[in-house]
Amino acid sequence: MLDVTLLGTSGTLPLPGRYLSSALIRIGGKLFLIDCGEGTQVALRAKGWGIRRIDSILLTHSHADHVLGLPGLLLTLAFSQRGAEEPLRIFGPPSVLPVLESIRVFAPRLPYPVYFIPLEVGDEVDVTDNLKLFAGPTEHDVPCLSYSLYVPRSPKFDVERANSLGVPRDLWGRLQRGESVFVGEREIQPQDVLGPPRKGLKLVFITDTRFTEDLVSFASKIQPPDLLISEGMYGDESMRPKDWDVPHMTFAEAAKVASASGARLLWLTHYSPMMADPSRYIENARRIFPNAIAAQDGTEISLSYED
Amino acid sequence: MLDVTLLGTSGTLPLPGRYLSSALIRIGGKLFLIDCGEGTQVALRAKGWGIRRIDSILLTHSHADHVLGLPGLLLTLAFSQRGAEEPLRIFGPPSVLPVLESIRVFAPRLPYPVYFIPLEVGDEVDVTDNLKLFAGPTEHDVPCLSYSLYVPRSPKFDVERANSLGVPRDLWGRLQRGESVFVGEREIQPQDVLGPPRKGLKLVFITDTRFTEDLVSFASKIQPPDLLISEGMYGDESMRPKDWDVPHMTFAEAAKVASASGARLLWLTHYSPMMADPSRYIENARRIFPNAIAAQDGTEISLSYED
Repeated sequence: MLDVTLLGTSGTLPLPGRYLSSALIRIGGKLFLIDCGEGTQVALRAKGWGIRRIDSILLTHSHADHVLGLPGLLLTLAFSQRGAEEPLRIFGPPSVLPVLESIRVFAPRLPYPVYFIPLEVGDEVDVTDNLKLFAGPTEHDVPCLSYSLYVPRSPKFDVERANSLGVPRDLWGRLQRGESVFVGEREIQPQDVLGPPRKGLKLVFITDTRFTEDLVSFASKIQPPDLLISEGMYGDESMRPKDWDVPHMTFAEAAKVASASGARLLWLTHYSPMMADPSRYIENARRIFPNAIAAQDGTEISLSYED
Repeated sequence: MLDVTLLGTSGTLPLPGRYLSSALIRIGGKLFLIDCGEGTQVALRAKGWGIRRIDSILLTHSHADHVLGLPGLLLTLAFSQRGAEEPLRIFGPPSVLPVLESIRVFAPRLPYPVYFIPLEVGDEVDVTDNLKLFAGPTEHDVPCLSYSLYVPRSPKFDVERANSLGVPRDLWGRLQRGESVFVGEREIQPQDVLGPPRKGLKLVFITDTRFTEDLVSFASKIQPPDLLISEGMYGDESMRPKDWDVPHMTFAEAAKVASASGARLLWLTHYSPMMADPSRYIENARRIFPNAIAAQDGTEISLSYED
């Protein structure tokens, strides 16, 4: 099971009633935060999933609207008595390091360790036993990563077959974890008792990028996303500034990524502050990808394995 | 006329429904902001007094809950098309300079100039033609200033006396501004046509300090405050942490400053996040100073000259 909510949906500026774009993901009781703008910690507190349980923070890039809430959140974690045994990991492109360093001015001493793990496009990390993180491409005016969070599902364990092979129950776990075991002289392989591979859960988060075909390839890797969260800076083409080439997507472009990557559901977010009511433009996405939602602060869903 | 509102009333942490302690003051169409925590810019926008009209920002000290909103606000002012002709002044103790320098990481280029004016206790600045700023003492664990904002009032102009002295109407303004004028060969002094000095408007802002008698002397200088805005971190003594000497005031201590300085009105603010409903403790202040209010986000008042 993977729960996900948007703590904010605003791009560029925080607005009354619309916090800066940020996602909170809960897997097995641990929290993972994607981006942390000014005010994200307030939305996090209001959500009530718990602040201290943040395992890791994933930063997409160093722009102010995605990172300025970080020093405040780090201090709040300190006030919440997070201690030396509870390190915090921050993942992101190497260019966020100067941001982290400048934060030291505001939070010179923290009672818990903070580790920065730089990621490049194509990197793959086992964040926890049951969460794989993939760093993907974007095209923005500073280095920026898209992220894919993948919760694998182990193959079905064939109880009848295990019994018929005489495998005692206390060895089942090792076979499920992919190890072979001995029953007397006979070696039993995992594939003897495990069914075919099964689909996991996959969440893809894409922000601060123009549309590229690389986004589609990244989003569709391993399996199509159960949920694609994508920036939709502009409800339609008319909102895109005329006088410079803005590396952001319209609702229609985000829908193209969703459709071409085979996503099951699309949440639009990271709206331009010019757009008072993003839902007014949702048809521009639905014409291309019907299962699109103009997400709002607090939109949430629980994703479960198929069956 | 001086309008003032509290954009937030929280100390230490921003909370849902309670922004970090900050005050917004409007004098003659210009805005002056005292302190800028995470989220202050959102409260500022919600208030609707205008963001671009900020003339100056007064920082009391460098602690995160009073300055972390600054980089975001500076960027928002840039997005609001504040240009090269609209410099922003930031006043504060010299120790906020490293904070301002670290902000450059988030806002490397701004389209308007930012000037930092360091202040020491005892400094007096003419911020505009009709606003004097006094920097006062506190006792905190880092250098921190209290502020007094004073809007002077010119003495009454005696029209009958001016007419009887034969002063033509177009010279009245110069006399009102304190210059002497000639009527024929005869020099007329301002005191010939002006009444006695009149009380101005005075607002005192005190935060992040333990109680000291110096606060009282500072608050009562020139004239008693029309409004004293004071931190009231703790509703009562029981909330004060036992294990370390905290440089903050209880409601009763803030009321003591109000009473001893002859203030007309006291707003309490900068509440501990432990205090869910500060108004429950207001009697602890009112026993000492009856005209005390447990201010909330958005509390506002217009101060006018007496008459």
